[in-house]
Amino acid sequence: MTREIRLNAFDMATIGHIQQGMWTHPRDRSLEYRTLDHWVDLARLLERGLFDGLFLADVLGVYDVYEGAPDAALRGAVQVPLLDPLALVPAMAHATQHLGFGVTCNLAFEPPWLFARRMASLDHLTAGRTGWNIVTGYLDSAARAMGFSAQMAHDDRYDLAEEYMALMYALWEGGWEDGAVLADRARGIYTDPSRVHRVRHQGKQWQLDAVPLWEPSPQRTPVLYQAGASERGRAFAARHAECVFLNAGSKANVARLVGDIRARAARPILAFVGATVVVGRTTKDARDRLEEYRRHASTEAALAHASASLGIDFSRYGLDEPIEAGPGNAIRSNVEAMRGWTKRKLIEQFVLGSRQPPIVGSATEVADELQSWVDETGVDGFNLSRTIVPESLESFIDLVVPVLQERGRFKRAYGAGTYREKLFGAGPRLAAPHPAATIRI
Amino acid sequence: MTREIRLNAFDMATIGHIQQGMWTHPRDRSLEYRTLDHWVDLARLLERGLFDGLFLADVLGVYDVYEGAPDAALRGAVQVPLLDPLALVPAMAHATQHLGFGVTCNLAFEPPWLFARRMASLDHLTAGRTGWNIVTGYLDSAARAMGFSAQMAHDDRYDLAEEYMALMYALWEGGWEDGAVLADRARGIYTDPSRVHRVRHQGKQWQLDAVPLWEPSPQRTPVLYQAGASERGRAFAARHAECVFLNAGSKANVARLVGDIRARAARPILAFVGATVVVGRTTKDARDRLEEYRRHASTEAALAHASASLGIDFSRYGLDEPIEAGPGNAIRSNVEAMRGWTKRKLIEQFVLGSRQPPIVGSATEVADELQSWVDETGVDGFNLSRTIVPESLESFIDLVVPVLQERGRFKRAYGAGTYREKLFGAGPRLAAPHPAATIRI
Repeated sequence: MTREIRLNAFDMATIGHIQQGMWTHPRDRSLEYRTLDHWVDLARLLERGLFDGLFLADVLGVYDVYEGAPDAALRGAVQVPLLDPLALVPAMAHATQHLGFGVTCNLAFEPPWLFARRMASLDHLTAGRTGWNIVTGYLDSAARAMGFSAQMAHDDRYDLAEEYMALMYALWEGGWEDGAVLADRARGIYTDPSRVHRVRHQGKQWQLDAVPLWEPSPQRTPVLYQAGASERGRAFAARHAECVFLNAGSKANVARLVGDIRARAARPILAFVGATVVVGRTTKDARDRLEEYRRHASTEAALAHASASLGIDFSRYGLDEPIEAGPGNAIRSNVEAMRGWTKRKLIEQFVLGSRQPPIVGSATEVADELQSWVDETGVDGFNLSRTIVPESLESFIDLVVPVLQERGRFKRAYGAGTYREKLFGAGPRLAAPHPAATIRI
Repeated sequence: MTREIRLNAFDMATIGHIQQGMWTHPRDRSLEYRTLDHWVDLARLLERGLFDGLFLADVLGVYDVYEGAPDAALRGAVQVPLLDPLALVPAMAHATQHLGFGVTCNLAFEPPWLFARRMASLDHLTAGRTGWNIVTGYLDSAARAMGFSAQMAHDDRYDLAEEYMALMYALWEGGWEDGAVLADRARGIYTDPSRVHRVRHQGKQWQLDAVPLWEPSPQRTPVLYQAGASERGRAFAARHAECVFLNAGSKANVARLVGDIRARAARPILAFVGATVVVGRTTKDARDRLEEYRRHASTEAALAHASASLGIDFSRYGLDEPIEAGPGNAIRSNVEAMRGWTKRKLIEQFVLGSRQPPIVGSATEVADELQSWVDETGVDGFNLSRTIVPESLESFIDLVVPVLQERGRFKRAYGAGTYREKLFGAGPRLAAPHPAATIRI
């Protein structure tokens, strides 16, 4: 049986997310990122297109690796200015019924007690449509903003993450029993105190002794996303993630990573790969659009972005010089994926692409290529980055979605229930052998 | 000239906020606090009534002083369960045009870098309708949830607050110059890097070295509320607050506090006092309503609330025993306001009232009493707590607001601009001599 393809929009509360320079296009509306209408319009569009979710990226520092300064990022609006992604969700949730929200939050910096309530609040208010993309950060600029001299070493961040997750599960799953809330007006008892338990944690990094302030949200633990593709990242994903997001270059590389994570995990994991699509009514129409978009692409902005992502200052390289990947502290899997590239190749890939080149063509050509990714690599779907907003998503929804539906590869209506139930057909709570389930009372 | 009265609704992302037990009334809808519709309906209602703002309270720990346990608070839904107030605002903001939002956040626990972006994001997304009620916390239960053994001493919290505010002003006012954003599509320059400055802070409590990630929001610094009425609290308010919220018992006491804060501050400060109103079409109708509501009030829940607010376990007192106010760490001004009370008096005051008894009567009687508060104490307006939701606010808006309007004491339309401009007729930025203005570039 052919598998149904999953689709997320990949976005960020900023102007230049992945495709740098597109905001200079006269039809692009990224400059409206500071208005709620912009995000509500996006959410309604995605729900019209039956997208599974909106995946929101985030970083906590400016990109200052290129030329050792934030200037290029500031000039090109490369993920700066950048707002809090959590603040976008409630307005979008109120305007939609089914769309899921996967929000990136950095556990190294968010106090566990406050963060647990924040995510539980979102899960309540979205009626169980909240997901969390677990990241540990990779930017020295973010660490300095939090008062540290530099980012923690890569493997230490994953040790920290393990402790954090144990604490989150305790707070989300271990405090209030399912039957604790009586809401009994006649007797004047809202909660049965005997079914609410104090959470105590004495860890290496955090201590906590508290009764969770919130009652259990529909999913308790939000849908867990993770994007680490390094050795430690994959071990972490296999233990915690329900969805993984990969940006790993070739189909062969993606297939290897997906296979490895699935082999390590004894439960279903949905894999999403990043993709940039330029679709037209005809092949020529699509190629014309690509050329038109390329005229607005910014090489400097793309290099500022790549330099920060990879921890390498590309202003120091000649065009045909092979790039030396140091160990660094940037996203390790990104560095591994471009081993041996020249700066010229990097520019080609990062300007209207990222780790993969853009998928360009008519609706049937795009559908063919998406299907081949799914069938050849084992991924379940795509995080679609934006080019021109909103036309890139509108044309995808108007042209590609119907073709996928006709081929039986995309749903014709949303499933029932929470985000987890829609994605996995099970839930709303995490089940064994996931570690969250072992903590539940 | 008579002054225009200012009105905020006083609410909290919970079931039992001030008037404990009301959720057991068959017409009360507080149990819907977990839905966005509930909050959007409230925001629309308030905007119909031309309310200046919605003031959202918060605490970060359960109330466990009464009987030394959280049981009474859990049973009676006394500010537990409780969601993140910030998560309510974006959906309400999208559904309204003018309503301001004053949100309580505890600076002792929120990492400055993340909090500064969070508030700036809200100020962007609400188009300049964001306020912050600055609190430093008073609950040991919240401190233990954050990994400390107990709450910091009262005056130490204010030292911490001074450093935090300096850091917030630097981040909100000192990073991006007003002309930094060019948004120049033709030249591909969004931000002029020469007009964006690194913020460096080496304090006793916090260190930070970062370029703010966000561009200036409409108000930069949100409208600043503060509610401390102790000696240190008033000194802090005189320095930082634009609005103060008082719950200080008698008119004489409120007048004294308002006068003292105004004498200390060399700039306009709006003072709000907490009030509970039960209005009817006639005096009898109002008194009947009060009796009906009283049948749903919970003494145990009120005592659980008062015990935590005052830091005194009232389960240990006989009804006619005078209450001994220890120094403690609870809200000091609350303790001072009830010096010499018996437990019996406390119950009378806290059941459908709080520090002040409820204002009960016909629309003209309620308007008379509100005016007498304003005219005799110097306060500018009221934070109206809810009894039965939404009928208490609906009847206030339908009955009392028109009387105040006829008397020329309440606006007939919203003013223009941001929250600050609507409240003060000036802005949208803070002006000298406020310390935020001295940091601006």
